[in-house]
Amino acid sequence: MSSIVSRSLLSLKSSIKQFHCTSRRMSKSALVIVAPGAEEMEAVIAIDVLRRSEVKVTVAGLVAGPIKCSRDVQVLPDVTLDKVLGNEYDAVVLPGGLGGSKALAESKEVGELLKRQEGNNKLIAAICAGPTALLAHSIGVGKSITSYPSVKDQLTSTYKYVDDKTCVMDGQLITSRGPGTAFEFALKIAEQLAGAEKANAVAKGMLL
Amino acid sequence: MSSIVSRSLLSLKSSIKQFHCTSRRMSKSALVIVAPGAEEMEAVIAIDVLRRSEVKVTVAGLVAGPIKCSRDVQVLPDVTLDKVLGNEYDAVVLPGGLGGSKALAESKEVGELLKRQEGNNKLIAAICAGPTALLAHSIGVGKSITSYPSVKDQLTSTYKYVDDKTCVMDGQLITSRGPGTAFEFALKIAEQLAGAEKANAVAKGMLL
Repeated sequence: MSSIVSRSLLSLKSSIKQFHCTSRRMSKSALVIVAPGAEEMEAVIAIDVLRRSEVKVTVAGLVAGPIKCSRDVQVLPDVTLDKVLGNEYDAVVLPGGLGGSKALAESKEVGELLKRQEGNNKLIAAICAGPTALLAHSIGVGKSITSYPSVKDQLTSTYKYVDDKTCVMDGQLITSRGPGTAFEFALKIAEQLAGAEKANAVAKGMLL
Repeated sequence: MSSIVSRSLLSLKSSIKQFHCTSRRMSKSALVIVAPGAEEMEAVIAIDVLRRSEVKVTVAGLVAGPIKCSRDVQVLPDVTLDKVLGNEYDAVVLPGGLGGSKALAESKEVGELLKRQEGNNKLIAAICAGPTALLAHSIGVGKSITSYPSVKDQLTSTYKYVDDKTCVMDGQLITSRGPGTAFEFALKIAEQLAGAEKANAVAKGMLL
C-alpha cells in the first residue's frame, strides 16, 4: 500500500512539474516596434502592461541606438528590428505618434513582418496614428478599426471605421485611439495573450 | 487728438508685445528624476504630459547612462542629476517604482535638492512609492498626501494620509497613487505650471 501511495505521489509530482513546464512554455510573446517619433506613452504603456502580464516582450528599434520619441523621451530598445525579423511573435504592437507611424509605414521590413503575422493569423495591434502603417502595408483590409481622430479620413475607404469605441478588436486586429486609451489597448492585448483573469489582476495592481 | 490716439495705439502695441514676451519668458520648468527601478509609465507620462503643456522638462538620471526601469524599459535621460543640482526648477517630480523610490530615498543629492525646493516654496510632486522618498528626506512633514497603497503604513505617522482621492495637493506638494492615476497626477502638475486651460486642452488632445 505504501508503495502505491509513494508511486501516486511520484506521479503527482511529475504531473505538477509537467504542468509548470507547460505553463512556462505557454508564456506568450510580443514584439513592440519603436520608431523615431513614436508616442512614448503609448509605447511604454504597452511594453510595461504586457510585461506585468508575464508576456515575453521584445522592444525592437526600427533604427539602431536610443530612439528619440515624439516628446523627446529617449528609449533604448532591447534590439534592432533587423535582428529579430526571422522570429515569430504572438503579437506585434505598433505605437502611434505621427513621426513614428510614418516611419513604420515607410519600412519594407515592417510591411513584410506584418504580412507574415497576418498570414499566420497572429495578433496585430496598433494605436493612435499606428493604423496608418496598417493601411500602408495593406493589413486587415476591410476590418473594423479605430485610430486617432485626425487620421480617420485616410482610413475610412479601406476599413470599417469605428468612432464610438476606444478599443476595437476584429479577428486578430486590435486598434485604439490615443494616449488616453493606451491602458485599455494594452490590457486588451494582455487579455488575448495572458487571459482575462491575469489582465484584470494587472489592471487592479496598477490602480485602474 | 489724432496724435493722442496714435500715441495710445503705440503704447497699446508695446504693452501687447511686452505681454507676449513675458508669457514666453514665463514658461515654467520641471525636473523629472529617473532612478534605476523607476516605474517607466509614471516617469514617461509625467515627462510627456508636461512637455505637451509647454513646460520645459529636464529628465535627469540619478546615475549615468540609460536607466533600466522597473519593467526593463531603458530610458536615456537628458542629463545626469549631478549636472543640474545648482539649477532652479518650478517643479521637481519623483516617479514611483519600489526600486526607483528606494534609490531616491537613499540619495543625499535628492534630499538636498528637495529641501531647497521646499525652502523656495516650489512644487514637489511624487507618485506611487515616490512619497517614501519624501519621508526619507523629511519633506512636507504633516501635510496631506497619498501613495501606492502598499507603502501607506510607512507614511501614516508622518503625514495626514488620504485614502479616498487619486491625487492630493496640499500647498506645494502633489502626490498620487500609481500608474492608473499617472495621467491625473501629470495633469495636476501641468495645471499648476501652465494653467487649467492648457492642461484641459492637453487632456482633450490625448483623448482623456
